[in-house]
Amino acid sequence: MPTFSQRLDAAAERNRSLLCVGLDPWRPSMPIADIAAFNRAIIEATSDLVCAYKPQWAFYESEGIAGLRALEATIEAVPNGVPVILDAKRGDLGNTSVAYAKAAFEIWGADAVTVNPYLGRDSLQPFLDYADKGVFVLTRTSNPGGADFQELAVRSADGEERPLYEEVARQAVSWNERGNVGLVAGATAPEELARVRAAAGAMPILIPGIGAQGGDLESAARNGADANGRRAIITASRSVLYASSGPDFAEAARAEAARLRGAINAELERMGKQWQ
Amino acid sequence: MPTFSQRLDAAAERNRSLLCVGLDPWRPSMPIADIAAFNRAIIEATSDLVCAYKPQWAFYESEGIAGLRALEATIEAVPNGVPVILDAKRGDLGNTSVAYAKAAFEIWGADAVTVNPYLGRDSLQPFLDYADKGVFVLTRTSNPGGADFQELAVRSADGEERPLYEEVARQAVSWNERGNVGLVAGATAPEELARVRAAAGAMPILIPGIGAQGGDLESAARNGADANGRRAIITASRSVLYASSGPDFAEAARAEAARLRGAINAELERMGKQWQ
Repeated sequence: MPTFSQRLDAAAERNRSLLCVGLDPWRPSMPIADIAAFNRAIIEATSDLVCAYKPQWAFYESEGIAGLRALEATIEAVPNGVPVILDAKRGDLGNTSVAYAKAAFEIWGADAVTVNPYLGRDSLQPFLDYADKGVFVLTRTSNPGGADFQELAVRSADGEERPLYEEVARQAVSWNERGNVGLVAGATAPEELARVRAAAGAMPILIPGIGAQGGDLESAARNGADANGRRAIITASRSVLYASSGPDFAEAARAEAARLRGAINAELERMGKQWQ
Repeated sequence: MPTFSQRLDAAAERNRSLLCVGLDPWRPSMPIADIAAFNRAIIEATSDLVCAYKPQWAFYESEGIAGLRALEATIEAVPNGVPVILDAKRGDLGNTSVAYAKAAFEIWGADAVTVNPYLGRDSLQPFLDYADKGVFVLTRTSNPGGADFQELAVRSADGEERPLYEEVARQAVSWNERGNVGLVAGATAPEELARVRAAAGAMPILIPGIGAQGGDLESAARNGADANGRRAIITASRSVLYASSGPDFAEAARAEAARLRGAINAELERMGKQWQ
């Protein structure tokens, strides 16, 4: 079984894309009522334009059991070869964490999952034990309140002082014994994203916050990509999913995804890191 | 509608109990296969001995859709008047957080939910907006790895230096504008629990970690209760649920819950805070 990063790289190269589409069904914005059918149409229209999909757990759970069935159907609808990052921000301890890891990888069939670092390394070990799956650790999130704790200066065990999000990034790098750790850093804080990339080496970074949240696409690519101009997973959700509220929603989603991919690739060219 | 704290106080007074039973179905330990039936038996055997129940989301999710149906049935089986704290450690942002709050309170019908503070105040606002529900913010968790970040000294906005968990507790106190915020602090770190209580005033504190995790019951009561000897929610899960693996599991659970309640109440008496 190839590792998550290998599957991510393969999809990115094949589709010449660092774009990830967030599958966030939000009823008030949806042009059709059936969540699974909506997602299937979005996936069919965009799967040759993306490096990954990212369903957000909350939007399925908030529809109850029927919503979670739609999540199952959605993950099933993603073609083999395009990894699925389940955005669930899990963080718990002991056998609870074992149960969460089993759920994400064995029940829902995700290729990777987002996790919250607040409970420390041992809380994430059950996820890290799945060597062929990806584990994305939150660092600096894309919301304004992310600053409340993540930007506080902490005194690290090495005696240095740095913002908490950067300490998290550094510790997460040290957890990457099996090559399956990634980081999450929001596009809305481009300087912090650059610092996270400096700590991360070539680890994949999941970058939400462009589009509706206001993050800048070009700086996300420039500050988020690794030295080879890769391993940034730049995520757009609402701007793609709800590009049109009419019956042409899938074509409109495709057009917006193509536009975003093109803008990212133009930035990669300016960096001298275009696709071969 | 009474607030969460009022419902908690009423259940605690009626049952003369600070004990909360964690409803954590873990297949390898379960004496019968049906999760909902198992939980119903536990609830029937203990509902006059507890101040709350705490189902842990992960153990239901890891059983897929069937597990989440069992969670629905479990919450339904709790008698009116005993609050249900859904232990889901949610933490996300924007409309995602809105969806999580809706799910916890409107779909699953919980009276309170545990949340992770890493994403800051705005990430929790959608939960706080449910004025009659409880929102329990993690501070110092009961696992050893909790120290990785929670014990780091942070420089706070007020210029003081303190451990991150204590800064979280203080900020969470400032979020308590509607009287619906609680804190979570593990029984395995009794000194830290005392510092959390010092910050919390009379806010409820959920205290996991006694029993299987090794936390001490007496210090949980002494360090966790407020000035009136109340508002500590001392949680035991495995030691109650799996007190017997035989057909007498419900009676054994009742006996163990009664023993734990008695030990807590003995400590309250030593503190001069016995029930009236």
